[in-house]
Amino acid sequence: MIPTLTWTGEGVRFIDQTRLPLEESYVLATTHEQVADVIVTMVVRGAPAIGVSAAYGVALGAIQSRAATPAEFAPEFERVCARLASTRPTAVNLFWAIDRMKRLFGNLRLSGATMEQIRQRLLAEAHAMYNEDIAACKAMGGFGGALLPQQGGVLTHCNAGALATCGYGTALGVIRSAVEQGKHIHVYADETRPFLQGARLTAWELMADGIPTTVICDNMAASLMRQGRIHAVVVGADRIASNGDTANKIGTYNVAILAKEHGIPFYVAAPWSTIDMATPTGDSIPIEERPAVEVTHHAGKQLTPNGVGICNPAFDVTPARFITAIVTERGVLRPPYSTSLREMDMVAR
Amino acid sequence: MIPTLTWTGEGVRFIDQTRLPLEESYVLATTHEQVADVIVTMVVRGAPAIGVSAAYGVALGAIQSRAATPAEFAPEFERVCARLASTRPTAVNLFWAIDRMKRLFGNLRLSGATMEQIRQRLLAEAHAMYNEDIAACKAMGGFGGALLPQQGGVLTHCNAGALATCGYGTALGVIRSAVEQGKHIHVYADETRPFLQGARLTAWELMADGIPTTVICDNMAASLMRQGRIHAVVVGADRIASNGDTANKIGTYNVAILAKEHGIPFYVAAPWSTIDMATPTGDSIPIEERPAVEVTHHAGKQLTPNGVGICNPAFDVTPARFITAIVTERGVLRPPYSTSLREMDMVAR
Repeated sequence: MIPTLTWTGEGVRFIDQTRLPLEESYVLATTHEQVADVIVTMVVRGAPAIGVSAAYGVALGAIQSRAATPAEFAPEFERVCARLASTRPTAVNLFWAIDRMKRLFGNLRLSGATMEQIRQRLLAEAHAMYNEDIAACKAMGGFGGALLPQQGGVLTHCNAGALATCGYGTALGVIRSAVEQGKHIHVYADETRPFLQGARLTAWELMADGIPTTVICDNMAASLMRQGRIHAVVVGADRIASNGDTANKIGTYNVAILAKEHGIPFYVAAPWSTIDMATPTGDSIPIEERPAVEVTHHAGKQLTPNGVGICNPAFDVTPARFITAIVTERGVLRPPYSTSLREMDMVAR
Repeated sequence: MIPTLTWTGEGVRFIDQTRLPLEESYVLATTHEQVADVIVTMVVRGAPAIGVSAAYGVALGAIQSRAATPAEFAPEFERVCARLASTRPTAVNLFWAIDRMKRLFGNLRLSGATMEQIRQRLLAEAHAMYNEDIAACKAMGGFGGALLPQQGGVLTHCNAGALATCGYGTALGVIRSAVEQGKHIHVYADETRPFLQGARLTAWELMADGIPTTVICDNMAASLMRQGRIHAVVVGADRIASNGDTANKIGTYNVAILAKEHGIPFYVAAPWSTIDMATPTGDSIPIEERPAVEVTHHAGKQLTPNGVGICNPAFDVTPARFITAIVTERGVLRPPYSTSLREMDMVAR
């Protein structure tokens, strides 16, 4: 099991995803500020993983608070939540996790809990979210694995794997499950510029599992599709609007268009916490612009001439019409997503 | 004027395109073997530039030969041509240039020329091809510049600029000409993994000309198109089949599909020497597979885990149906290209 994030008793230990695959090192965060820092610097990344990380950050805020009473702690709790919510704007799992901790804290205050009870319950809630995340990945893996061909090439973009979750992965969970179902899958991993999550992280964790993997540059996908080497695409998601429009790592929309042009199914795999019923369409999803240096430099070496303009949006939005199915732990949703998402949301309430 | 390649009297001086944009250094090739090496190692690259480079390589083979007579030189001439032809398989300009030198040598032998005359005439032919290349770029620039909008964003892929030719450029010649025509063009340059010709070379030469340029990762193009920031795409070509199918830098086909999806015109700019009437369709164009290390490493630093599979095709083929127009020094060709290319080819014979 890949130790994406682990509660140690004094804090959360993160595998440093900025240093993989060549170096396997760890960062221990014992305060909510340190958790915020590891999210901002992408030591931990991936929508489900940053959601659970933020929940642990909130718990650490309570554990380390010197407040004697819940009333005294309340304004500090708000600051802790605000700091963690300010780290990254696109993945809705972050806000979902913080909101869940806020609701719990509100209920505990109403019920007259002590600070010590609040500390224990907030930490227990983070643990619960951790375990639910792995269970959701396993469940969506089962549903999604059944969609993949008995044999063939599957393209994925970025890393929606064990490293993007508390374990098993969303898109890579679907692939892992297909392999466990006895299917012969060869994974093509887009390297995913500029942060190279595919080349570094997806390749690393699939090789650890012995799943055949080929890394390609992002611009090679169309050529491979035309050659008949890609039979399905599976990606993760950072936020899914109520109409099915999906924000995910920059370049996902490119891949979706290429898949449609070649008649290849395009699947999104994500836990229900990624679905944002309050966001009507992709146009309302905030897209994070990351520092230009991620594009202009690699490993301290400058690639581009001084002063050139740079774009570095971290995400793009794939309109719902490009998505063959959305795979969640509750089942597989099909278009029209406005209907299928609403129905599934009602059933689960 | 950017000194892509320059005859010095003793050989060809190349700007080292593997070291741009941070270092402006030069390599002098005084033998045909050295010219072959600079082509293989991509010190010089770009279909028109490697064609003219190969012509100079043939001339250097004659200049440095110790043969006393054309008959004695003939087998050596064949070996020189074969060495240069073996450097890279996809760009047809290379074979076009070598064939032109072969035809000239054959005619000179028939006419009873001396070795000294042969040396002078082969070098003069290389000079002629050099000058014709710049003239062709200027001519296609005029035709193509007229196709671009009065104002807007133009996406280009790889480097089809002064650095890919003897000067002015093909796709970038079209952009330069549009700017000279008073149009307000903002260039978006795909960084073009793995060799980063866009980030390194296109950005460098457009900034030198004061043309506003933004570098993007290859996977950001669809997102910018959806935002309405791209109004046209212009790319170069390495070989155009007689039906209009076009081989160009890997990722060009991706861009063509994205442009079609967004209703954006997609132009190919290339000299007539890039058109291969003997190749019926893109399926017959040989695609060079480059070393995996170009994908796995950057500046000596390893990106991917040990042992992962890698694809590194240097080119892809864009089917003719994605191409709005092909811009050549003879004029602008429109679909159906089987007809328009044949007609233009007949007129020019």
